[in-house]
Amino acid sequence: MSDPVRVVLEAADMPRQWYNLNADFRRPAPPPIGPDGKPVGPEMLAPVFPMNLIEQEVSTQRWIDIPEPVQEVLRIWRPSPLQRAVRLEQALGTPARIFYKNEGVSPAGSHKPNTAIAQAYYNKVFGIQRMVTETGAGQWGSALAMSCKLMGLECKVYMVRISFDQKPFRKIMMRTWGAECVASPSTETHAGRAVLAQDPNTPGSLAIAISEAIESAVTAKDKPTRYGLGSVLNHVMLHQTIIGLETRKQFEKIGLYPDVVIGCCGGGSNFAGMSFPFVCDKIHGKNVRIVGVEPAACPSMTRGQYAYDSGDVAVMTPLLAMHTLGHTFVPAPIHAGGLRYHGMAPMVSHALREGLIEAAAIPQNECYQAAVLFAHTEGFIPAPETSHAIAQTIREAKRAKEEGKAKTVVMNWSGHGLMDLSGYQAFFDGKLSDYVLPEAEIKKSLASVAGFPKPPA
Amino acid sequence: MSDPVRVVLEAADMPRQWYNLNADFRRPAPPPIGPDGKPVGPEMLAPVFPMNLIEQEVSTQRWIDIPEPVQEVLRIWRPSPLQRAVRLEQALGTPARIFYKNEGVSPAGSHKPNTAIAQAYYNKVFGIQRMVTETGAGQWGSALAMSCKLMGLECKVYMVRISFDQKPFRKIMMRTWGAECVASPSTETHAGRAVLAQDPNTPGSLAIAISEAIESAVTAKDKPTRYGLGSVLNHVMLHQTIIGLETRKQFEKIGLYPDVVIGCCGGGSNFAGMSFPFVCDKIHGKNVRIVGVEPAACPSMTRGQYAYDSGDVAVMTPLLAMHTLGHTFVPAPIHAGGLRYHGMAPMVSHALREGLIEAAAIPQNECYQAAVLFAHTEGFIPAPETSHAIAQTIREAKRAKEEGKAKTVVMNWSGHGLMDLSGYQAFFDGKLSDYVLPEAEIKKSLASVAGFPKPPA
Repeated sequence: MSDPVRVVLEAADMPRQWYNLNADFRRPAPPPIGPDGKPVGPEMLAPVFPMNLIEQEVSTQRWIDIPEPVQEVLRIWRPSPLQRAVRLEQALGTPARIFYKNEGVSPAGSHKPNTAIAQAYYNKVFGIQRMVTETGAGQWGSALAMSCKLMGLECKVYMVRISFDQKPFRKIMMRTWGAECVASPSTETHAGRAVLAQDPNTPGSLAIAISEAIESAVTAKDKPTRYGLGSVLNHVMLHQTIIGLETRKQFEKIGLYPDVVIGCCGGGSNFAGMSFPFVCDKIHGKNVRIVGVEPAACPSMTRGQYAYDSGDVAVMTPLLAMHTLGHTFVPAPIHAGGLRYHGMAPMVSHALREGLIEAAAIPQNECYQAAVLFAHTEGFIPAPETSHAIAQTIREAKRAKEEGKAKTVVMNWSGHGLMDLSGYQAFFDGKLSDYVLPEAEIKKSLASVAGFPKPPA
Repeated sequence: MSDPVRVVLEAADMPRQWYNLNADFRRPAPPPIGPDGKPVGPEMLAPVFPMNLIEQEVSTQRWIDIPEPVQEVLRIWRPSPLQRAVRLEQALGTPARIFYKNEGVSPAGSHKPNTAIAQAYYNKVFGIQRMVTETGAGQWGSALAMSCKLMGLECKVYMVRISFDQKPFRKIMMRTWGAECVASPSTETHAGRAVLAQDPNTPGSLAIAISEAIESAVTAKDKPTRYGLGSVLNHVMLHQTIIGLETRKQFEKIGLYPDVVIGCCGGGSNFAGMSFPFVCDKIHGKNVRIVGVEPAACPSMTRGQYAYDSGDVAVMTPLLAMHTLGHTFVPAPIHAGGLRYHGMAPMVSHALREGLIEAAAIPQNECYQAAVLFAHTEGFIPAPETSHAIAQTIREAKRAKEEGKAKTVVMNWSGHGLMDLSGYQAFFDGKLSDYVLPEAEIKKSLASVAGFPKPPA
């Protein structure tokens, strides 16, 4: 048994396959459908994504090989360390063992490159020369910018105008990796011009940026171009499972297995990446609790409805069966920028409905308190998104103390907060609100899914 | 032989002793002296530093134990990975093997916590309750803020006014770790008030901030307070040797030994930390080249004079025998903020004089070009300081190509640039100048050391 404070794996021990939970669900998750209720065929997605990724999207194969050129790039920072937060345990006086999987060690500072590298690779081998995407807080846009440069593709990022103006350093980061970054709404697309005509001073939104990115990808004439999405879809969940697969190996190495597995949830990808290998174990009889944590201001799993809904406001995407607040939902201006999506990944939603995982919602002052305690004990400053996982971990550690149980708790520490420090300032200045979404507002935005077909009960 | 792309060590393999090069110099380095030419006794430094650190400063013991509580904190991110930059090698078409020791994985993003943690510990066990320091670019202030929090001390940082105003995120970072950050010059000290009386709109300077921090430390009445310095002094070099000791172990693990060892030089600590264990090998007969790299705009080693000089403008410190441009030297406003000191660490200067190391100076556009190539091949965005080491590494790799030799080159990758991206923007916009210091300016500032005693020839 090696020293359990920091569990490292050799580069040669990095997993060589991704794990696909769709092979193990007892009931399969409902497929995407069109507004007419009919399943969406691969050919309908072909203008948006390359066919090799569409095949992964619908695959039910349990293990999928990670291509060697993808492994080669991932090994620049992977396997990421599994660390024990001994000093946090001491500060809490808990008998629980707290572990965190440090995804902040990637060049972009979060888990996002795990799928960005894979997506750039599959686009490249399919003959695509440019990828287009949108970004809100900036984590995904940065990760795809880097990945396209490493794989030899061009990259264009539509960045929500208010972030574009408030986060100059994210722009420079993307520019350093050679990406073109455009404020959204822009005058370059039909969708953007339409919004600007109505409101020239709009701060923009993720929904508008998605529309612009998809339009830009499918209408590009000069060179083969496709769109890339950083969360929600099945192939994104798949690529992130390397996190949980490594974690399981690392626990084996020190002779432990977690009692509780925790991740924060926006679109669901970092949570899925950490938890799905453990969900697999649970399906096969292992006793483990798995908790997804969302902001109280955007509670799709804890207060939304399981329904067929669109991925964007303009209903350009197929309908996905998921926990949703309704696609017209507009989240309050909270700081955890990455956790503001109206829906939840269909695979995560299905796992929740199958009773394989639990969901929790936490208000943001508790999250920032947790983040600051983490920084004061372990040093690392967490991303605002990651703070939700830390807050839930602290809740579990306190419960273990009350129960007097030496539980093993592990969280996905999805990224560092060095590019997103203004939320900390607002927290210290007492300017963060613990906004909890009123019931009436949920009811109102959920009305937008009423006309869609219903998933099987 | 393990996979050589990324060489990791277990936490249990972290070195448990620091290496002191002062035990191995054939001629000892000249000691610090007072303006009267007499050696400075420990008691003269006692108001500024705790006695346990002063003992390390003058020690000639070869190996010094790293206290267990310091090891415990260092293990949060150490041993840091030694990585092979395969993709950079390919881009250069060089037969050289290029390795980088990734010190960017620390919570503060650079090598600085290696000594900050040790300094905070020694102050703590000596009964000190508050540490005071200055910071320019912000790397050192951040590292000490974190370290004081982890060791249970208060921390106060005088930050050069222009950085304080231009780098709000560095301030939030220090605040997150609980430190008080004050713009310098401030109205809190005699030194600060004197400067403000002359020029209320001064942007400040590192020299002024040092004066304020020392004054604040030695005059504090409310609780035991001392000053901490992030480079230049012997005990700082000592604490950083963990970098080179790990690197040597990592090369042993893969059955290699470097032909060339490279580090960037401001005050000298990251270069010393990487190189001194290899300097030791060289003294004992090993064939290895060791190169310190400084900016062409602040060339203390390549164009300065080896002389006794003061560490600050106001001549408050003892006189140190070092390569210097003269303590009245004012560096041009270049972006590599950490490499602007007029002098060089006495131990590094002595190693240079003894012919154990070489020095090179590189203009900054070449450095940023190197940094961008690194980001495009390895993903990680380097700190502006680190870019100097990368530029020299690329020079060596190109030379290896010309000579057709498969040399092994290793650089200390001292930190990431995510908190210092504005230099990249200036580079892309073509706004960086390749300022080379005019001879007349060096002559002028060197006049300030003319009246001091001379070190032995």
